[in-house]
Amino acid sequence: MTTAWRLDPEALPPLVDHHCHGLIPAEEPMTEEALARRLTESDTPPAPGTTHLDSQLGFAVRRWCAPLLGLEPHAAIGDYLARRTELGGAEAERRLLGATGIGAFLVDTGFRPAGPALGGPSPEGTVRREVVRLETLAEEVVAASGAHDFADRFEAAVEAAVEGGAVAFKSIMAYRHGFRLHRTGRPGRREVRRAADHALMVARLAERPVRINDPVLHRFLLWTAADSGLPIQIHTGFGDPDLRLAETDPALLTELLRELASTGCEVVLLHGYPFHRSAAYLAAVLPHVYADVGLTLHHVGARAAAVLAEYLELAPFGKLLFSTDAAGVPELYAVAALTYREALATVLAGFVADGAWAPPDAERVARLVSTENALRVYGMA
Amino acid sequence: MTTAWRLDPEALPPLVDHHCHGLIPAEEPMTEEALARRLTESDTPPAPGTTHLDSQLGFAVRRWCAPLLGLEPHAAIGDYLARRTELGGAEAERRLLGATGIGAFLVDTGFRPAGPALGGPSPEGTVRREVVRLETLAEEVVAASGAHDFADRFEAAVEAAVEGGAVAFKSIMAYRHGFRLHRTGRPGRREVRRAADHALMVARLAERPVRINDPVLHRFLLWTAADSGLPIQIHTGFGDPDLRLAETDPALLTELLRELASTGCEVVLLHGYPFHRSAAYLAAVLPHVYADVGLTLHHVGARAAAVLAEYLELAPFGKLLFSTDAAGVPELYAVAALTYREALATVLAGFVADGAWAPPDAERVARLVSTENALRVYGMA
Amino acid sequence: MTTAWRLDPEALPPLVDHHCHGLIPAEEPMTEEALARRLTESDTPPAPGTTHLDSQLGFAVRRWCAPLLGLEPHAAIGDYLARRTELGGAEAERRLLGATGIGAFLVDTGFRPAGPALGGPSPEGTVRREVVRLETLAEEVVAASGAHDFADRFEAAVEAAVEGGAVAFKSIMAYRHGFRLHRTGRPGRREVRRAADHALMVARLAERPVRINDPVLHRFLLWTAADSGLPIQIHTGFGDPDLRLAETDPALLTELLRELASTGCEVVLLHGYPFHRSAAYLAAVLPHVYADVGLTLHHVGARAAAVLAEYLELAPFGKLLFSTDAAGVPELYAVAALTYREALATVLAGFVADGAWAPPDAERVARLVSTENALRVYGMA
Repeated sequence: MTTAWRLDPEALPPLVDHHCHGLIPAEEPMTEEALARRLTESDTPPAPGTTHLDSQLGFAVRRWCAPLLGLEPHAAIGDYLARRTELGGAEAERRLLGATGIGAFLVDTGFRPAGPALGGPSPEGTVRREVVRLETLAEEVVAASGAHDFADRFEAAVEAAVEGGAVAFKSIMAYRHGFRLHRTGRPGRREVRRAADHALMVARLAERPVRINDPVLHRFLLWTAADSGLPIQIHTGFGDPDLRLAETDPALLTELLRELASTGCEVVLLHGYPFHRSAAYLAAVLPHVYADVGLTLHHVGARAAAVLAEYLELAPFGKLLFSTDAAGVPELYAVAALTYREALATVLAGFVADGAWAPPDAERVARLVSTENALRVYGMA
Repeated sequence: MTTAWRLDPEALPPLVDHHCHGLIPAEEPMTEEALARRLTESDTPPAPGTTHLDSQLGFAVRRWCAPLLGLEPHAAIGDYLARRTELGGAEAERRLLGATGIGAFLVDTGFRPAGPALGGPSPEGTVRREVVRLETLAEEVVAASGAHDFADRFEAAVEAAVEGGAVAFKSIMAYRHGFRLHRTGRPGRREVRRAADHALMVARLAERPVRINDPVLHRFLLWTAADSGLPIQIHTGFGDPDLRLAETDPALLTELLRELASTGCEVVLLHGYPFHRSAAYLAAVLPHVYADVGLTLHHVGARAAAVLAEYLELAPFGKLLFSTDAAGVPELYAVAALTYREALATVLAGFVADGAWAPPDAERVARLVSTENALRVYGMA
Repeated sequence: MTTAWRLDPEALPPLVDHHCHGLIPAEEPMTEEALARRLTESDTPPAPGTTHLDSQLGFAVRRWCAPLLGLEPHAAIGDYLARRTELGGAEAERRLLGATGIGAFLVDTGFRPAGPALGGPSPEGTVRREVVRLETLAEEVVAASGAHDFADRFEAAVEAAVEGGAVAFKSIMAYRHGFRLHRTGRPGRREVRRAADHALMVARLAERPVRINDPVLHRFLLWTAADSGLPIQIHTGFGDPDLRLAETDPALLTELLRELASTGCEVVLLHGYPFHRSAAYLAAVLPHVYADVGLTLHHVGARAAAVLAEYLELAPFGKLLFSTDAAGVPELYAVAALTYREALATVLAGFVADGAWAPPDAERVARLVSTENALRVYGMA
């Protein structure tokens, strides 16, 4: 009897995490409540009698992280946190990040509250590059210089970001406005000026910082980023408490994606769940569109292999990318990477066991999704 | 070699069926055609050359119910009905309901044709509580007292229902109007009066009973129920021949659900299929929202474990609830409960076999979804 | 120990492929690039650094077709094409079509560029019947006789098609206009005339052939076909680079399907992915509606059993139909049929192994979906 084929973990090159966020300081004490809050996309306390730890992600943390700190898998959360304190945050972070097998982190630096500026993870020997969040950049431009020549200044800021070494831009239109756009073309300068004026006026009247959530400005940001030559990451599907899920289906972007193609840009549809089959479809029919598995896999935990397999129905194998979308605590990087690695190995083993795929093809696809597609798309090869 | 872990059926407390309907009289003779009609969500005869029994639900009835009447699983439907007649309807009902393991039935009494008033199942030793259908209650109020002071009278009726011991309210907006609402706030009294007047006038002109299907009235019913302190069950997804599926995605309720939160109410999204992942998402991000697996599981039959696993991707384990949504014939209660129990055991065994969950966690989640979440949500603990 | 039950391939009657397209001439030389282009729904070259062969369908071709030409499964594509050339296109076609087990091909002849007129496959001993594409027929009518009495002439053309032996009509409204229709009733003659005039004028101004993409005309075509007594196939879901996926959900057709029922017509919803659960739902609640698994299964390749199982959740077993939707190269017929046969056997074996289905039921459902449903729907029994 021969042993069934399974991906050799050593066969994978270091992963490229093409979309993640900053870490909070390692020394910050970690309570059960603080950890639970980091494991949910909700921004409210849990319902009475429930806890955010009673979720696939909560169980996955206990499964994957407890052994990295020297405990049994599925150790009680209290034991886990006691052990974490005992080791110290820095050592816990070192162990958790070290287990990910990630060799390069592309960090979205626009989500400031999640960590210090540019504070992505950087264990020794790893590469760290910046992903610039378009809305944050635009809000900084308006805050600094007003709305008057916003279009020019924003274009200059995008150019500066490229020159500063950014590897991609990112759009959060999904949870600022949603994807139902009446028009998708590049907006005119006067429209943009008017919209920027309006955003500034609203901010002043409300006495709060400028917030970009106008479709004209979202379109302008995307078209400007498209001209830059860097790939654009677009948040799609779940992943923020503000969003209306029905307006984040990437299929709603079809028209816009087709038009943006004229610039020669590349677009990576982030997350996508539960519309990940739509994202995979778009990656199949539009040559400049890619799909990402980040955030989804660790949130569905024990179901990660099942959901990853759904991405792999229509997505061309040169068009799917691993990421973590982890933010804040090192547990999320570990869980995201280990969930992904396990899910990938399980899915590929199933395809091979069914006779549907040959082992060398499975190994090649594993390298593409884990590393090589990202190196190619982000020009890091 | 150790045996793989599997949930001990004895480990489960009696199930709480938090949403079901009335039974037809047990003595009513049961023909193949009558049974087939009970197993479909269609309200028309089957296509020529086909039968409603050739479905997952039809096969599931033969699988689960035949042995309860002393036949082999998958006995031919003719043999099953002959045996059922031989035993007598009352004995068949006793056996079928007895096998469910359900200890409490929360009965939607608003669907009158399905059984005598309040005619939910009540085997000895079980608890029965009432779920009041908002639209039926409103139609009764208009029929009894006209539209003039409908708002006041409906509020009084809701209050009376609470005092009368109801445990929840239920909305069928999904198949009366659908979820595309232009406004979601609490409607004003004048609007409500106008809408009630209109509903009454239409009914008089058409010489038929008043039918609530106006978005203003649906909103009024929901906001009034939300004030009552009882949970609101909202039908979502498939489950009625009248509905337009694309308008029953619970994700379309996001705005309304967010606004209703201000009342402190709790909302249970019923059924949900094929949008059950959206329902699970809402349960994850909105603390006052819960999701239900009823109706779906027995309709998908052999696929129940696969579909239950999809609910369990994002739904927090303290937010998912078992129900049958059974109506009319005792076979549906038996099939729904046995399908659920088998699917739950299969899904949990898979999670444990993969190393993703620990057995004690699996047992705890089984108790939550089967019983404890419902006891907590409906204040029956 | 008994061997697990699995469908005996010999137990299946010859398959009815109720929806396929024409073949290119067998002698046309086949390059890697030409084959890759046939394996994608995209109409553009692949992204730099990628190939359309790195997809489930690409892998499935190497899995299923290589052995039919005498190579190992998963042979490299270069070796496959060399062997194909060595054998000659005619012999390759003979082997590939011969392996499908298809006994009847219903050929959509409206997609002219895919093959010579009426050029569906016809290995010896097989039946070939015509499916008439409504838009192509209408465009021919306008091109030949102008818009003036288009409605009369189109009705006559439909009647002639029926008399000419067509077995069905087909609508491609999905990728010409999409399914968001403001009105769904039968349009009046004046409206139709106006819309035909407009289509003709646009074509003349643009100096290109007439193109039907107006909702009034699509509705007229469907209502006219519905009167013919032949079933109507409607493209739904993915399957053409022109479509906007969010507008091809068959659930959006609910209203139209309900109204068309008054004619007594039957409607087959083609493909459906990723909305195949919606298609199955419609087949469950509307007696005149059927669902098709074609195109989807071979595109998802290694995932075909998983996706076929999703169709089988709600679709009544007398309402689901096999097809290939193959076009152009014989590889697609072979891959589609072999993927389907394997997926069907796998799904049914799973249902039986779980105790959910009995083997005789599984065999009967296999015959229904593979052959008997199509014979009944298309009046070929």
